Amino acid sequence: MTDIMIRILPKQDILDPQGKTIHQALHNLGFHQVQEVRMGKQIRISLPNLQEKEALDACKKMCEELLVNPLTETYTLETLPL
Amino acid sequence: MTDIMIRILPKQDILDPQGKTIHQALHNLGFHQVQEVRMGKQIRISLPNLQEKEALDACKKMCEELLVNPLTETYTLETLPL
Repeated sequence: MTDIMIRILPKQDILDPQGKTIHQALHNLGFHQVQEVRMGKQIRISLPNLQEKEALDACKKMCEELLVNPLTETYTLETLPL
Repeated sequence: MTDIMIRILPKQDILDPQGKTIHQALHNLGFHQVQEVRMGKQIRISLPNLQEKEALDACKKMCEELLVNPLTETYTLETLPL
């Protein structure tokens, strides 16, 4: 039983329109201390029949084949506690 | 200088159509070991002039006022290493 969290962020030098929109909205609400906002995704994958090593390998393949755009995004994998 | 990551997930009993779509796409690609996919957001907030405690308090207010729907979502805050 392994749950993996895939965490995806836009690369640092890539424009992030969602982050910019949130930044503007926070500013309008009075949060003037915010310097930057970056908006990303997190995807929790439940793999009940795999051990941690196999689950991490499978999630890496999922990122490469579907979930992450290597041109614009970076990702990390984290094994979640049961 | 404090960077806070806000991590948002749909509540466990809430339908997650994005997660379901990803689950189906992974299945079509041959990842049959996946039992469940939950899709959430992560938002990195840079607060260069606040100490950690103030930054966490500010991010909690941002979640309550704009970023998180308390009916359908849960969130956690994490201070990022410099």
